[in-house]
Amino acid sequence: MSDFNLVKAVDWRDEKLRMLDQRVLPETVAYIEYSDAAAVAEGIRHMVVRGAPAIGIAAAYGVVLAARAAYAQDAENWRSKIEPDLECLAQSRPTAVNLFWALKTMKAHFASITGHPETELLSLAKKIHTDDIVANQKMGDLGADLIGLDSGVLTHCNAGALATGGYGTALGVIRSAFAQGKINHVYADETRPWMQGARLTAWEMVEDHIPVTLLAEGAAAYLMKLKRIKWIVVGADRVAANGDVANKVGTYSLAVLARHHGVKFMVVAPTSTLDMNAMNGEQIPIEERSAEELHFSYGRRIAAAGAQAWNPVFDVTPAGLIDVLVTERGRVEQPSVEKLSVLMSKI
Amino acid sequence: MSDFNLVKAVDWRDEKLRMLDQRVLPETVAYIEYSDAAAVAEGIRHMVVRGAPAIGIAAAYGVVLAARAAYAQDAENWRSKIEPDLECLAQSRPTAVNLFWALKTMKAHFASITGHPETELLSLAKKIHTDDIVANQKMGDLGADLIGLDSGVLTHCNAGALATGGYGTALGVIRSAFAQGKINHVYADETRPWMQGARLTAWEMVEDHIPVTLLAEGAAAYLMKLKRIKWIVVGADRVAANGDVANKVGTYSLAVLARHHGVKFMVVAPTSTLDMNAMNGEQIPIEERSAEELHFSYGRRIAAAGAQAWNPVFDVTPAGLIDVLVTERGRVEQPSVEKLSVLMSKI
Repeated sequence: MSDFNLVKAVDWRDEKLRMLDQRVLPETVAYIEYSDAAAVAEGIRHMVVRGAPAIGIAAAYGVVLAARAAYAQDAENWRSKIEPDLECLAQSRPTAVNLFWALKTMKAHFASITGHPETELLSLAKKIHTDDIVANQKMGDLGADLIGLDSGVLTHCNAGALATGGYGTALGVIRSAFAQGKINHVYADETRPWMQGARLTAWEMVEDHIPVTLLAEGAAAYLMKLKRIKWIVVGADRVAANGDVANKVGTYSLAVLARHHGVKFMVVAPTSTLDMNAMNGEQIPIEERSAEELHFSYGRRIAAAGAQAWNPVFDVTPAGLIDVLVTERGRVEQPSVEKLSVLMSKI
Repeated sequence: MSDFNLVKAVDWRDEKLRMLDQRVLPETVAYIEYSDAAAVAEGIRHMVVRGAPAIGIAAAYGVVLAARAAYAQDAENWRSKIEPDLECLAQSRPTAVNLFWALKTMKAHFASITGHPETELLSLAKKIHTDDIVANQKMGDLGADLIGLDSGVLTHCNAGALATGGYGTALGVIRSAFAQGKINHVYADETRPWMQGARLTAWEMVEDHIPVTLLAEGAAAYLMKLKRIKWIVVGADRVAANGDVANKVGTYSLAVLARHHGVKFMVVAPTSTLDMNAMNGEQIPIEERSAEELHFSYGRRIAAAGAQAWNPVFDVTPAGLIDVLVTERGRVEQPSVEKLSVLMSKI
């Protein structure tokens, strides 16, 4: 891991939360400082930070800021005063379950706290952050084991250091497999409309001197037909109990195309992304963002005025199209409700 | 057809060729005038005009300009003097066969011309142009017949009035079916990197008051999963003798996804797009354009510097994924070399 230039998307420093503004990367590398939870929620909503694990970590630090404010407001009753901020954080984005998982994990700790909650909650948030990095590295190894020599791989959106505590889920596997000399080339879907592939994944790969080639989403099927890739490796925003995976829109498309072309399909996600309460993909709320994201780019109109636009942010890939789900607790081939239940019951 | 606001992509006026600059549509509606063939070739190369039939028509008018210049240079030997210009036009873009078909059709007429060639060649170019519009209308009817009531349709890139002599191939079918009350909604893929769907198709539909919704290419599979469309209707840049279809990159992806979801797949192209010399799709040259088209948008960098980019402009959809090919000579269901041979032998 030390060989890679890993940027910190989320960072706690000088009693504040700093988040790398991913909306302006890679042209501009700028951090925004946050000292209250409502602002963190706005940062999540407006995609200063994105990527399911990174959103969870940001929310955990947001709870620290919320607790500080609640305690200052009413030291006796900070546990009730903090509720509006927790609700605000929970409302920031609907699909990535790591957000709710982090809020729940932080909140579960409230009862045992005596006195000022900030120190203990900060320790817990830092642990969530560190655990995520450790999970990334573990998943990197577990996923890389499956990749054969001289493989081309395609990834979609960004599931890298920027989307996690560091190292990455899908890009963690790619980094580990590349370090093992197994990957000959990384292909990155541009990922409209936010261009996370073109802006973020390509940037991470260039920084790490991993050969990367961008392509428009529409070219991915042709890439597979030309047999340039053996694996598609992606992250996840939420995995249902039966193994259905919500991830960046276009992932489902790739999974169907992969099956058609005999390309293997790997999803890499820590268990904080698993939602055993969602029986299947149909129970995962799919965020739709503004039509403006399709109509404008950097403030410039790029589409015909008067047209409607449909902008679902995620789609659901059925478990049946997934060859393997890689978590920090182990790999699950052909995921199913039975296999995920066993995985989640492991200590 | 009279109910629709059909723009002219290619227009002969005042002894010059005028082409609507499709690179700046729909924000700016501007025509560029051409009075020599080399400039027309540059216009085709740089995508002032695009769309296989429109490229063919532009090339035909380009031959008129070339003949004028060749005759002025050497009235006796204009047939040899014109050759460099013909070669220049032929080199402008490699995939759309209508370009070569139009040049061949114009050139076949050279032998019978006596005296100044301009008038006769202009008549022929205008006939090519008019025939294309007539073919569009015929295909519009033939394709619309297949579409059932209350259908949603998805189209890719732009195969509309802008891509043809007028009316459109895929959009011709959509216009006709809409006029018959059969289409409830049109979905338009954005079509990276040139955004022909967002800029051109959406614009044509808005101008014609046909309800249109843009989506990122990555969302098309999810659209199909939601059962919002019954048909995908696209144009073609070249159809091989066995029915394989080269069209805008992303078309093959849609065809695979359509088959997976039980959505019908229609290709609409005049017989000038059929290349009976290409046995199958592997014999169709696929243009790759500059990496810059993925790295920049309107001069602004949109992707990480240092990344490579793969920018194939077209892909090939195998005949086996095509439910019907609609030409002005008739419909061909499940196209095959036998069926296309019969079609092309019709008078």
